[in-house]
Amino acid sequence: MKISVAQINYHIGNFEKNKGLICNAIIKAKAEKADLVIFSELCIPGYPPLDLLDRIDFIEKCSSAVKEIANCCKGITAIVGSPTINPNTEGKKLFNSALVLSEGKVIFSANKALLPTYDIFDEYRYFEPEKKFSVFKFKGLKLAITICEDLWDEQHFDNEFEKRRLYTLSPMEELCKQHPDLIINISASPFSHSRIESKAEIFKTKAKKYGIPVIQVNQTGANTELIFDGASMIINNRGEMWRRLPFFEEAFVTFNTDDILSGKDPEGDLKTEHVELIHKALVTGIRDYFSKTGFRSCILGLSGGIDSALCLTLAVEALGNKNARAVLMPSRYSSEHSVKDAVDLAETLEIKYDIVSIEKPLNAFGEILEPLFMGMKSDVTEENIQARIRAVILMAVSNKYGCILLNTSNKSEASVGYGTLYGDMAGGLSVLGDVYKTEIYKLAGYINRDKQIIPQNTISKLPSAELKPGQFDTDLLPEYSILDSILYQYIELQKPADRITGEGIERATVERVIRMINNNEYKRYQAPPVLRISSKSFGDGRRMPLVARY
Amino acid sequence: MKISVAQINYHIGNFEKNKGLICNAIIKAKAEKADLVIFSELCIPGYPPLDLLDRIDFIEKCSSAVKEIANCCKGITAIVGSPTINPNTEGKKLFNSALVLSEGKVIFSANKALLPTYDIFDEYRYFEPEKKFSVFKFKGLKLAITICEDLWDEQHFDNEFEKRRLYTLSPMEELCKQHPDLIINISASPFSHSRIESKAEIFKTKAKKYGIPVIQVNQTGANTELIFDGASMIINNRGEMWRRLPFFEEAFVTFNTDDILSGKDPEGDLKTEHVELIHKALVTGIRDYFSKTGFRSCILGLSGGIDSALCLTLAVEALGNKNARAVLMPSRYSSEHSVKDAVDLAETLEIKYDIVSIEKPLNAFGEILEPLFMGMKSDVTEENIQARIRAVILMAVSNKYGCILLNTSNKSEASVGYGTLYGDMAGGLSVLGDVYKTEIYKLAGYINRDKQIIPQNTISKLPSAELKPGQFDTDLLPEYSILDSILYQYIELQKPADRITGEGIERATVERVIRMINNNEYKRYQAPPVLRISSKSFGDGRRMPLVARY
Repeated sequence: MKISVAQINYHIGNFEKNKGLICNAIIKAKAEKADLVIFSELCIPGYPPLDLLDRIDFIEKCSSAVKEIANCCKGITAIVGSPTINPNTEGKKLFNSALVLSEGKVIFSANKALLPTYDIFDEYRYFEPEKKFSVFKFKGLKLAITICEDLWDEQHFDNEFEKRRLYTLSPMEELCKQHPDLIINISASPFSHSRIESKAEIFKTKAKKYGIPVIQVNQTGANTELIFDGASMIINNRGEMWRRLPFFEEAFVTFNTDDILSGKDPEGDLKTEHVELIHKALVTGIRDYFSKTGFRSCILGLSGGIDSALCLTLAVEALGNKNARAVLMPSRYSSEHSVKDAVDLAETLEIKYDIVSIEKPLNAFGEILEPLFMGMKSDVTEENIQARIRAVILMAVSNKYGCILLNTSNKSEASVGYGTLYGDMAGGLSVLGDVYKTEIYKLAGYINRDKQIIPQNTISKLPSAELKPGQFDTDLLPEYSILDSILYQYIELQKPADRITGEGIERATVERVIRMINNNEYKRYQAPPVLRISSKSFGDGRRMPLVARY
Repeated sequence: MKISVAQINYHIGNFEKNKGLICNAIIKAKAEKADLVIFSELCIPGYPPLDLLDRIDFIEKCSSAVKEIANCCKGITAIVGSPTINPNTEGKKLFNSALVLSEGKVIFSANKALLPTYDIFDEYRYFEPEKKFSVFKFKGLKLAITICEDLWDEQHFDNEFEKRRLYTLSPMEELCKQHPDLIINISASPFSHSRIESKAEIFKTKAKKYGIPVIQVNQTGANTELIFDGASMIINNRGEMWRRLPFFEEAFVTFNTDDILSGKDPEGDLKTEHVELIHKALVTGIRDYFSKTGFRSCILGLSGGIDSALCLTLAVEALGNKNARAVLMPSRYSSEHSVKDAVDLAETLEIKYDIVSIEKPLNAFGEILEPLFMGMKSDVTEENIQARIRAVILMAVSNKYGCILLNTSNKSEASVGYGTLYGDMAGGLSVLGDVYKTEIYKLAGYINRDKQIIPQNTISKLPSAELKPGQFDTDLLPEYSILDSILYQYIELQKPADRITGEGIERATVERVIRMINNNEYKRYQAPPVLRISSKSFGDGRRMPLVARY
């Protein structure tokens, strides 16, 4: 039997587009004489559809699309993912289904049993878990059709407090009673740089355990904060990576099941360099946020610092230099090199930039606020005014030219609240909000791997917000190497304060950093969506009560 | 047997405070010779603890608090709510438990079986559902101890697409096999003005169906967006409201079970006037956001319009007139009466206010942006600059004086994106973000029920943002009566466009309003937390994909 795997970038709710992509792949699969073509989880609406699933009209559009796609399946069979209505009187209204389509009909369906409801996943919000299992007999083979988490009954979490077995049921244990020949897993599995290897291991382990191949089909492309790496896997019956589809690209491959059933000639896995994948993920995230919201161009504030420099470089890669624009907004506190470094980068990247001094509005605010602040000392208020003036300018350009403001905050400063709400925290999309400062340097090094793009001075100078004379980040924060280690242990690993350790890490610093994290939940509540590259990003995957005392 | 019901306002993660409140109530119950005192769901950590539940140290603090409270239970028994660790190797790491404490020990526990995972609830994110049930035998009676949703196996949703039976299990059907004498339900059930009666009906129906009384114990007070109405219910064996604890207040009552078992002398229900309860809810929401975050005073922009007037009035009620401050920020487009109306209200309420013209910064931005906007027409950009200048001023006062900026946007404008991000959408808390404009008028009428507080002119003038000459809301929006009806049907009832109907509602208007709602998800993503009074509020209870095309 010949099987095609279609790794596609879907757009949530864009049924016409998704149908077109799917039908084209069906035509291609037929041309390659495939018997079966497999698409990813919830490919019909795009993943994650979130609360659009609560709308009956949205579900009806899914059903119509399924019918149309079934009509494309002449002389070929396809597996697609779609929500379907739960016909029982009790339970959630929907199932998360894999539908087998052939000759205009749904000839088999399997519903997801394990519904991830943690981190960025909310599937039990919408779906009823399936409790019955059966294999699909096709061309002499028995296919165990599973949906993403169905194979993740055993997994390792970064937070050690989580159980390795989150579910009281193992779909594959049930399906194995029917002796399947192949495991098919349709997925919508987002990228996390710390789980690249462990994700592959999940599927390899299943193939090895049951002695049958696993075909995992993932989507690619980004939907707001979630970036799907694709990297679909064909694993042979010995648990070896027989073939891996590319990361962060659409791809299509047709193969013969005999080859993976016999376990012959595995191509092996792709090389996975973390910094390179993070780079690809962020470029994908920017590109798709713009293309899927219908915007083409971006604006950002270029300070001469490393965060905005990296952000701009990624944006130019994603959108093209004609679609990226920068504003340099020096003040009385800006160092001379800041403007020079920013101009250097803008000219290297050949993007349009303007230099707009913030002195006039700064003076104007000073004057009108004087009666209210008379006799009071200058403090963080005045620093925030500068940051907010810059946001007003950037948003004005955004509004006037119809471009999206990119937010350039990094995860380290977002964690401790080292940023101004409605100031440098503004933007339609946070590009680096899940990238710690120490990782920012690694990415900058990667950008400059062949030739210098980001100016050396931008990389080597001491980080500063330049909101008052002689200000450096380390005035308020520990060294970034120490800060990031504490943050990672507290946020990703969720360790208690007394178990956060490492070279140069003192308990008092840990306590201070944790207080800063907790005291700034309110700022992050209003932050833009953050492109997620880690296992615990700010945004929907991390939900903290604002009024907690903890 | 004598039972005390303790309706308390807990603070999330503030274990010392919660322990103190609980132990004091135990002492009081003992003084009133109660055998049993009942607290609400997850009272130990406060509800909702959200992702603090993912932290092992947080759970350990819950366990320690339970032990200490058990030690308070000398000669009396208490039922408290706490997360407990799931001892099984499979499943979620926690249970949502009701623990029976006596003489220093946990003598019985029941775990929640039905885990609400919809709207603002995410309980399956943290908890394993219980599948086994047993009654607790106490002083000759058999108690069916249930936790909130456990009695909600059958309910009516505003969105007709939802099933009435969300679960495949009914805990009371299971418990009834053991012939309980009393149903106890510990709850953390937030207020929604459209569900006041239906919530009471849930419990009355159970009491009537099984012929046994229901004692429902709810928490009160607000935690960020969620406002808990308390209003705990004691329902007799005929399904009549025997006694109802007050709305939005802490309360404590002791009664004899003989009285409700015999069904004698019901006091009946409290009167529930919707507008009065919404008013109380909002005042509670403001008060607790401030007290629980450790802030005392607020600032807001007073425009002379009805939204900011209502918001200020509520804030003065919640925080006192010494803790509320306003800034009036007229521009060249402000009408004369705007300043006068705002001053009138500020003086009536006896609050501090300042008048700060935005002309100087407006001119300064005009000058510095001129080179970038040369030859381009004035548009919404210039309107947004005015709104953002006001936010800079308000946030400066907030930063300088350590007070929280209250956001005054209403639900109608938040729905259609009629507001400026980082401008009038700024603030630490959105007071009216779940109140439609038509409801704003009703609340203003309620405020003025005895004497005029909000100026008549503020109520009767046509709504306007005053960002350009002769501007009125109806330039861009339908009449509010029509707009609000469309919004309610689309947002709360989740009706498809073709089923949204009513007097004066045209299909083209419906389509236009829906487009506005969908196109402005990105703005609401960055909005402040919204005090929730409806069954579908913006914020955590409504999760929309930003890049969807729908």
